[in-house]
Amino acid sequence: MPLQIGFLIFPNMMPLDMVGPYEVFGKMPDTEVHLVWKSLGPVTVAGGRQLVPSTTFSECPALDLICVPGGSGINPLLNDAETLEFVRRQANNARYITSVCTGSLVLGAAGLLKGKRAATHWMSREMLAHFGAIPIAERVVIDGNVITGGGVTAGVDFGITAAAELFGPEVAKTIQLAIEYDPAPPFEAGSPDRAGEAIVASAHASAAKRQAERQIAVERAAARLRELEVAQAK
Amino acid sequence: MPLQIGFLIFPNMMPLDMVGPYEVFGKMPDTEVHLVWKSLGPVTVAGGRQLVPSTTFSECPALDLICVPGGSGINPLLNDAETLEFVRRQANNARYITSVCTGSLVLGAAGLLKGKRAATHWMSREMLAHFGAIPIAERVVIDGNVITGGGVTAGVDFGITAAAELFGPEVAKTIQLAIEYDPAPPFEAGSPDRAGEAIVASAHASAAKRQAERQIAVERAAARLRELEVAQAK
Repeated sequence: MPLQIGFLIFPNMMPLDMVGPYEVFGKMPDTEVHLVWKSLGPVTVAGGRQLVPSTTFSECPALDLICVPGGSGINPLLNDAETLEFVRRQANNARYITSVCTGSLVLGAAGLLKGKRAATHWMSREMLAHFGAIPIAERVVIDGNVITGGGVTAGVDFGITAAAELFGPEVAKTIQLAIEYDPAPPFEAGSPDRAGEAIVASAHASAAKRQAERQIAVERAAARLRELEVAQAK
Repeated sequence: MPLQIGFLIFPNMMPLDMVGPYEVFGKMPDTEVHLVWKSLGPVTVAGGRQLVPSTTFSECPALDLICVPGGSGINPLLNDAETLEFVRRQANNARYITSVCTGSLVLGAAGLLKGKRAATHWMSREMLAHFGAIPIAERVVIDGNVITGGGVTAGVDFGITAAAELFGPEVAKTIQLAIEYDPAPPFEAGSPDRAGEAIVASAHASAAKRQAERQIAVERAAARLRELEVAQAK
């Protein structure tokens, strides 16, 4: 049976978070890649495009690797019992539990990051601590069977890293060459440390509402998670 | 009226070629992004996913920037009169004529690269010369109003470069920070110069059929282009 990989897809997800590693995984030998959501109807993602799931929570086969992308659409997922239950159930048996960008907050809300080192988008990094995770300012973080990538474009670095874990470095390098991943960013502006104060302030300003809503959703999700743990401990 | 950007989308295109710059352009102020194809029905792209065009060749507004992504699906486009005519017509009035990966071969087949320096995927680079272009081994090449990106992942570098051309460096940097484009490739394998002989040989082997077919399509397209030029010169 081919290796089973599933991306959670959802309304208002960031397409590039998924398409970066999708392109990498699609080039791995003997691998089947699924796009999973609650139903098979088209999902409207950030930017207004539609993405068609290939399977549903109930029909999805047992995954060897589950990957949760990020985007503004994670906010409602943090307290969406059906989604968290699906992620938790798949994570139980998966070889790798993974995310790109703010997808790691969904892993956190599902209770999968307790005591784990994890990456996420720089602007939401400290929120990981609410779920008992250890926020790490790195492009890709591996902790046991949990592999998390940083913001958006880190999905390509994450994908190649995961390909190397699954199939070894030679396969990963062949894919890296096929997608000509030899980046040359035109500016030194990809991290808050180097973008300069004005650019960082502008990024914060344009995301203020989403981040404020996310903070509330994270705190609510963290409280639910503790409640669940207390109930299970009894 | 918002800035009008259109991506040509087509069967068997490489999704990441388009989604990289799409994410960048979608964050530019007062910009409308179109996905254009012959009809509005879903288009099956590389990897088997479906993409829904937002407009058609006949309905598409005049574009300020046209972008042609690449992928194995460019092979039939090189001799597809309807597509080449659409690209040529839009290019006539566009401020910028652009491509990612092997999309530049389509620009070439449309007669838009004569005497122009241009980039493409490393494996198809020399083919550009058939269309009178000057193949350049760089990540992003600007020659007049033609901006071309290298293979697949170069679309992000291309997108940020184009954003800077259109809106200046401050806007481009803010977008680069928002998508956390601070790459850290896990291997030094993104270009044929550094991937090592065995990896390069493996990449060539797995693409041999597609490249042989492409060579034929390029030569045929180049002959048609010369024929057109002779006819117009009379």
